[in-house]
Amino acid sequence: MTVELICVGTELLLGNIVNTNAAFLSEQCAMLGLSMYYQSVVGDNRERLREVLEAAKGRSDVIILSGGLGPTQDDLTKETAAEVTGRKLVEDGQARREIEEFMAKRGRAITENNWKQALVPEGCKVLYNPNGTAPGIIIEDEDTCIILLPGPPDELVPMFEEQVYPYLHSLQPEIICSKMVKLCGIGESAAETKILDLIERQQNPTVAPYAKIGEVHLRITAKAESEAAAYGLIGPMEEELKRRFGSLIYTDDPQVTLEMAIAGLLKEHRLTVTTAESCTGGLLAGRLINVPGISAYFKEGYITYSNEAKEKILGVAPKTLEAYGAVSAETAEEMAQGAAQAAGADLGVAVTGIAGPDGGTEEKPIGLVYISCYCRGRCHTQRNQYTGSRGKIRAYSVATALTLLRQTIIDMK
Amino acid sequence: MTVELICVGTELLLGNIVNTNAAFLSEQCAMLGLSMYYQSVVGDNRERLREVLEAAKGRSDVIILSGGLGPTQDDLTKETAAEVTGRKLVEDGQARREIEEFMAKRGRAITENNWKQALVPEGCKVLYNPNGTAPGIIIEDEDTCIILLPGPPDELVPMFEEQVYPYLHSLQPEIICSKMVKLCGIGESAAETKILDLIERQQNPTVAPYAKIGEVHLRITAKAESEAAAYGLIGPMEEELKRRFGSLIYTDDPQVTLEMAIAGLLKEHRLTVTTAESCTGGLLAGRLINVPGISAYFKEGYITYSNEAKEKILGVAPKTLEAYGAVSAETAEEMAQGAAQAAGADLGVAVTGIAGPDGGTEEKPIGLVYISCYCRGRCHTQRNQYTGSRGKIRAYSVATALTLLRQTIIDMK
Repeated sequence: MTVELICVGTELLLGNIVNTNAAFLSEQCAMLGLSMYYQSVVGDNRERLREVLEAAKGRSDVIILSGGLGPTQDDLTKETAAEVTGRKLVEDGQARREIEEFMAKRGRAITENNWKQALVPEGCKVLYNPNGTAPGIIIEDEDTCIILLPGPPDELVPMFEEQVYPYLHSLQPEIICSKMVKLCGIGESAAETKILDLIERQQNPTVAPYAKIGEVHLRITAKAESEAAAYGLIGPMEEELKRRFGSLIYTDDPQVTLEMAIAGLLKEHRLTVTTAESCTGGLLAGRLINVPGISAYFKEGYITYSNEAKEKILGVAPKTLEAYGAVSAETAEEMAQGAAQAAGADLGVAVTGIAGPDGGTEEKPIGLVYISCYCRGRCHTQRNQYTGSRGKIRAYSVATALTLLRQTIIDMK
Repeated sequence: MTVELICVGTELLLGNIVNTNAAFLSEQCAMLGLSMYYQSVVGDNRERLREVLEAAKGRSDVIILSGGLGPTQDDLTKETAAEVTGRKLVEDGQARREIEEFMAKRGRAITENNWKQALVPEGCKVLYNPNGTAPGIIIEDEDTCIILLPGPPDELVPMFEEQVYPYLHSLQPEIICSKMVKLCGIGESAAETKILDLIERQQNPTVAPYAKIGEVHLRITAKAESEAAAYGLIGPMEEELKRRFGSLIYTDDPQVTLEMAIAGLLKEHRLTVTTAESCTGGLLAGRLINVPGISAYFKEGYITYSNEAKEKILGVAPKTLEAYGAVSAETAEEMAQGAAQAAGADLGVAVTGIAGPDGGTEEKPIGLVYISCYCRGRCHTQRNQYTGSRGKIRAYSVATALTLLRQTIIDMK
């Protein structure tokens, strides 16, 4: 089955926003085993939208449109889809009631405009929207299934996950299931090399790599006649990946981030952690604090940007800074140990480096970053040489620090 | 003049990456005054790429393609563009030399594949690429201008800014100039309401609002027969915006971020700042440290996630925490003042709040965040009630904290 995306909105053509809906919907469709060959973006213009929709009807089994379901004159998606499928618009009573409730709850006055959002193409399936006033729509039209979703990601994502994904799953003659295995501590090229045979095999199940910052995610996808059979194919492939990658795999749960996996380990081993950051300036602690409930394992962290701060707050010895400099393994280790002691934490992670664009020398170039993780009298320290912008160097340093923290906890067992 | 985008790459259709190139190129084309009506994404497939390119030729003056210029078999953009414009591929000597140098500098072996990257459609304009091995291409074909750019943003962005933008600027019969005015401390609806007459006027110059996190950017665009005349139209509009928004405008330089503007103010007034963060967990310091050279004005910051840390590191009184709780104006002010004193800084900014998804109560719901900025014996404190996810609440809190910091410095004068 083929699927095509049409994202509607002049703001996309003006570059006001980044098209995150396209990335989300594409990945969801890949998980569903639907083949996507085209994506289009078109503005709030009736003729061009109709033209693109007609072209899509001629070549794809499923068409997903996002955007253009709002209450203003510029919102044309529903009207155009109704026209193209030869249906009239009729009012859906429940949609109308839900709009009234949604606006009342927020103390907002309903305008004439809003009522048009309760109109739906006759005979369609209505997808009610608890996060906004525009319901989604599914039109089953002869050979084509046309799905209309609201543009705001906070409305589109839950609606797709809760209502559209199961619907598309049920449409398929075959069952497609997938599982995601996430790796840290290995680069994309190295990971692909270790499984080149599996990637190139292209049989059932397939393995596809996705590069992230400091991580590689591997999606295993299988087709079969039942979910049990599909997972029966995924299982051995997952085992093979575990055999090849071992503890580099930090989760097989698509919802779990690296910081969440680390929080789980901290909880399991009843450990607390603190952070001491220089060039990453708070971004490492920022990632740990992404995890709800982290307060049980993270109490305080330090941003020691100047040498004085490293001495004063973390007890780094002036002699160390003099002899080796702020960006050195020695300083990183004293920062990590000093932080653990200051915070009374089991683990201390420290990052010190040159993020650029200034500050590099022949001996210590931009991108040189030392990361150290202290635990129970021992330091695990890593020297990294990154390339790229200030932001990129800092983001990769944070990912490496989290990876080193995880490895340190695992090695403690 | 109309422009159309075609982004080439199967990874876009699989949702492996977000299409940031489309947002960048769209915004650049809007700045150039080019009208964009269509964007397409197509995979590494010769027939479909040719089909989409032929359709684009029939309807747009300029076509920009990104991606598919790599050395592998899947990279087809150049071959397809050459076919569609009836040109053969010939080797460009300088491109070949640059590929050799690029690979040698990085200690990488050149493979047969790489040589195909030195081939270019006969008679085209070559855009040399210091950031990669694929040169960009401009084909001036009868009525259409076709521009090929490498996919990786680190290569596409500089190539476009340095070579393609001036080229497109020169192609236009009219001169289009634009200026960006950035506001903080006002929401999108409120900002739009203040300039509804200017937005709806739609004459020359035009004003277009762009909503960002905690900011609103206003782009003024003017068309004229010369740059001087265009800027002559922009000037009065900019003055009008300054009259209406006053000090809410933090810059008129598109490269300057809010944290950079703040760093400029710190430098101008010779002030130092420190941060004390609870729920934002390092993200506020993280934004300040985005600015190269911030080390002169920011020496250390604190992440005081637990109540104990607030007492121990910042000297927040146990009685205050008992009486008012961690999330209160009183605690925020003691955090800000305590941080300034601990760091010996002129300014201290503190954030304390409930980011969710847990921790909210009837009295103190999720999204309640207090922000305080201490300076010279005085605290400026703000109570905020945000909605949304944990990440959204934290990001908006950081933006508000930066806005309050800026306002505090300005009010000191």
